[in-house]
Amino acid sequence: MRRLVAHEILGRAARRHPDQLVVSGEHRFGYAEIHDRALRLADALSARGVGRGTVVGVLDLNSHRFFELHFALSLLGAVIHPLNFRLPPADLAYTIEHAGDEWLMVWTGFAEAVAPLKGRVKNWVWLDEGTVPDEALSYSELLEAGKPQEPDSARQVLETDVYTIFYTTGTTGRPKGMRYRHQDIILASLSILHHLALYRGGAEAHAHDVFMPLIPFFHIHAWGTAFFVPYLGAKLVLFERATPDVQLGLIEREGVTWSNMVPTQLHMLLEAAGERRLPLKVLTGGSPLPKGLAARAWAKGVRYSLIYGGSDQLATAIAALPRGVDPESDEARAELATWVFPVPLAEVEVLDRDGKPVPRDGRTIGEVRVQSPWLPPEGYHNDPERTQASYSGGWFASGDLAVVREDGALYVVDREKDAVKSGGEWIPSALLEAALSEHPAVAQVAVLAMPDDRWGERPLAVVEVRPGHSLDEAALRAFLQEKVAEGRIARWWIPDRFEFVEEIPLTSAGKLHKAALKKALGLAR
Amino acid sequence: MRRLVAHEILGRAARRHPDQLVVSGEHRFGYAEIHDRALRLADALSARGVGRGTVVGVLDLNSHRFFELHFALSLLGAVIHPLNFRLPPADLAYTIEHAGDEWLMVWTGFAEAVAPLKGRVKNWVWLDEGTVPDEALSYSELLEAGKPQEPDSARQVLETDVYTIFYTTGTTGRPKGMRYRHQDIILASLSILHHLALYRGGAEAHAHDVFMPLIPFFHIHAWGTAFFVPYLGAKLVLFERATPDVQLGLIEREGVTWSNMVPTQLHMLLEAAGERRLPLKVLTGGSPLPKGLAARAWAKGVRYSLIYGGSDQLATAIAALPRGVDPESDEARAELATWVFPVPLAEVEVLDRDGKPVPRDGRTIGEVRVQSPWLPPEGYHNDPERTQASYSGGWFASGDLAVVREDGALYVVDREKDAVKSGGEWIPSALLEAALSEHPAVAQVAVLAMPDDRWGERPLAVVEVRPGHSLDEAALRAFLQEKVAEGRIARWWIPDRFEFVEEIPLTSAGKLHKAALKKALGLAR
Repeated sequence: MRRLVAHEILGRAARRHPDQLVVSGEHRFGYAEIHDRALRLADALSARGVGRGTVVGVLDLNSHRFFELHFALSLLGAVIHPLNFRLPPADLAYTIEHAGDEWLMVWTGFAEAVAPLKGRVKNWVWLDEGTVPDEALSYSELLEAGKPQEPDSARQVLETDVYTIFYTTGTTGRPKGMRYRHQDIILASLSILHHLALYRGGAEAHAHDVFMPLIPFFHIHAWGTAFFVPYLGAKLVLFERATPDVQLGLIEREGVTWSNMVPTQLHMLLEAAGERRLPLKVLTGGSPLPKGLAARAWAKGVRYSLIYGGSDQLATAIAALPRGVDPESDEARAELATWVFPVPLAEVEVLDRDGKPVPRDGRTIGEVRVQSPWLPPEGYHNDPERTQASYSGGWFASGDLAVVREDGALYVVDREKDAVKSGGEWIPSALLEAALSEHPAVAQVAVLAMPDDRWGERPLAVVEVRPGHSLDEAALRAFLQEKVAEGRIARWWIPDRFEFVEEIPLTSAGKLHKAALKKALGLAR
Repeated sequence: MRRLVAHEILGRAARRHPDQLVVSGEHRFGYAEIHDRALRLADALSARGVGRGTVVGVLDLNSHRFFELHFALSLLGAVIHPLNFRLPPADLAYTIEHAGDEWLMVWTGFAEAVAPLKGRVKNWVWLDEGTVPDEALSYSELLEAGKPQEPDSARQVLETDVYTIFYTTGTTGRPKGMRYRHQDIILASLSILHHLALYRGGAEAHAHDVFMPLIPFFHIHAWGTAFFVPYLGAKLVLFERATPDVQLGLIEREGVTWSNMVPTQLHMLLEAAGERRLPLKVLTGGSPLPKGLAARAWAKGVRYSLIYGGSDQLATAIAALPRGVDPESDEARAELATWVFPVPLAEVEVLDRDGKPVPRDGRTIGEVRVQSPWLPPEGYHNDPERTQASYSGGWFASGDLAVVREDGALYVVDREKDAVKSGGEWIPSALLEAALSEHPAVAQVAVLAMPDDRWGERPLAVVEVRPGHSLDEAALRAFLQEKVAEGRIARWWIPDRFEFVEEIPLTSAGKLHKAALKKALGLAR
């Protein structure tokens, strides 16, 4: 390849590994065929006006179509906007308009979500073989119409051209958009792979692995797998809608050795596996990995590494075993679920409220600040106010809270906005939630900040009790006292108030919907 | 780090791994201290006029001084010119003038080589604590004079700024210069490391390795170790002048696990080791690895990988074990000494004389063409004619000859200019030399092209006989007939003429000096 641009990664894979498989459900393509399809698409789209800088929204599952569109649009110098189908319709529409999407490519299953946008976006492509609405082009007809030749534009695309835009799923305010250049998203994606190859860990990755991402493409291009798997020339296994049972079948049939997923997906996969072993390397993150889940996964043969990052910073840190730790030990099991090290090229600082680095004592909480070559050059797209608050002097202030160990490992304990600030000190709600969720009668728990005259804020715990169990405040207080005695939490972290509810609402991303809870409890500001 | 620029790699190492050691002979520094020294140097040099674009020649051994200068000059946006102390004085002077060196930094041991340049370069720095000539500044005084603060220039250096210039040791014509930008040399260097981490091989590299390059810095910055070792935050062991015995002592004392070297250096290290085992991972290349040497090294515990590349293309391909090959097998031993695969991001084609890819049959010879994101943007510096002959359409025509196997592995058999073109077909002299050198009475052998009326060229073998042995043409012809029977060489490759000499002359880089031989035999054009 000549430059760090997306389509050159696929071109290289097609030339070097023409027959290496990209499996997509029941479809099977070689990289050469995927490349051929991307060239056809680019040719057909170019003839219809897609060109340098055109923003194209894609609302699809993790199909081969979505995968090849990554490269077809790159060939034209266009900008891909992977749409988050889990966003509420109003937010989805907001991101489409805010990004300036001139084209929408939509899979039938999401037709309803985009129906309100009909008159507002001009060009539509329907991503399946079914009934294509009158106003839309058909994806398969585009594929047939295009010629498999490299467009002139392909050679003019620069590594510094904007290539992708996507949005946070922030629970407060409108989603925030980030535009990344080719070199940003490629360096960040490769950095994940290189970390997994250079350091010991549970999700080590090498050229002989077979990769099946469970993370959707709209989350940082499936955490970079859209780029780093073809870069490696490795086998890629995709699927569209698939139950955990079907996923397990694919893992077995295709010899999958490596996957990525959030803890909820890991939970579902383990449930589906039942008594069967699941020897799989898993990169996990997005929310804390509960201890019980980690233990169950480990016992079944899953080996995992935790990743820390986000849409507005990309990959920042991944677990890695310190020298001398036996990778099969209990120490490794705990380490890989908890502590992370900056990925190659990234740097992290944890600062106290005076902007000074916190001591490396593994206990003092500060805010995570990140520096890397792939931070979005303009910060948040078209949002100077929120940009100023988060990006400055080459650093990104993440709003996440962490402690640092002597060897530089980080433990990200909470989001700053979720933490409780009591007497000027942070109480990390995630740590309290983790402690409370170990009680056998607790199904789910959310810790919220409650205004307090004396302390500013004090914690309040909202508890969903497991069906068939009973639980009261006194029992939970006693349980937390034990955790205090074990040194797991501080005494002054124990919540002032406990609320018991039938069900804790979740966000579109499967996280605790704290905003809704605050509103219901009258705590919203 | 913010950008792919050299000094940010050291900055990150200093912050993340402040106490990780850089050993330089008897000196021991942490990365933080090396960073501090680089800052002081940059400050002092800045005050004396070194700035953006200033070209600084460095004539030194692989010392900590040379290492820290890599970063001090980067901080100022200056260009480092690592000088090849093995070049003949006239060529050395040519490269200094052609590159436009405004500063020379010289180690005392090389004073004589640069004496003729006294009036021609304005600014001199003397790189040791001994007697400093009147006209030169002292390195240690510069270090004392500078303040350890980041210069303003550091933030303005771009990844696309020129950072380094160095020269080929071409045996034909003047050395050719290449200027590389920060991102070129860094991506190429990291690509070596990533290949060694992503693929199985003898010289696998990981974060826990201890690195001691034997390749001098003037050869592509010690084959990229100047950048990829601090990038990894790993321990780096350097030395100035050291006998193989001293090198062995360092390997043992410092726990060195990984090194790079040309086959001649490997030979010397093995000789020095005597009966001792040498469990070391070695990246080797620059010239073919003779079978006997490979076997001796392997038996002692050395595990190697062959690398293919050059000053005008940087890293291109490295050995990697195909799936299923036992890394301890004889198959692995032969594979890792012979076949190479393109490193991440690089691409290779082998073309016949019509510019078509040769069949992937492992037998048909063609010319190697290379594409990668780090080819020198302007081709050969200030040399449009030779640039046009070698760089076009994003490809570099290497002039090397290779065969390709079905899995895409390459076997680089010869330099085109060294090959014999007989009846329009190439006879690779390196393969003939390898076959002949297996004869027990052959000390060294060089195969040359001899003008021939009928075939254009025919091979001529110049043979240096091992002391105490006797050998004649008939014996060698019979020996080569055996190789023909084994399918190792073609019958028509057998040389038409054999010359026996007392000693074959070597070039400054330790390669067969074919130009001198041709001249002596009256074959020079």
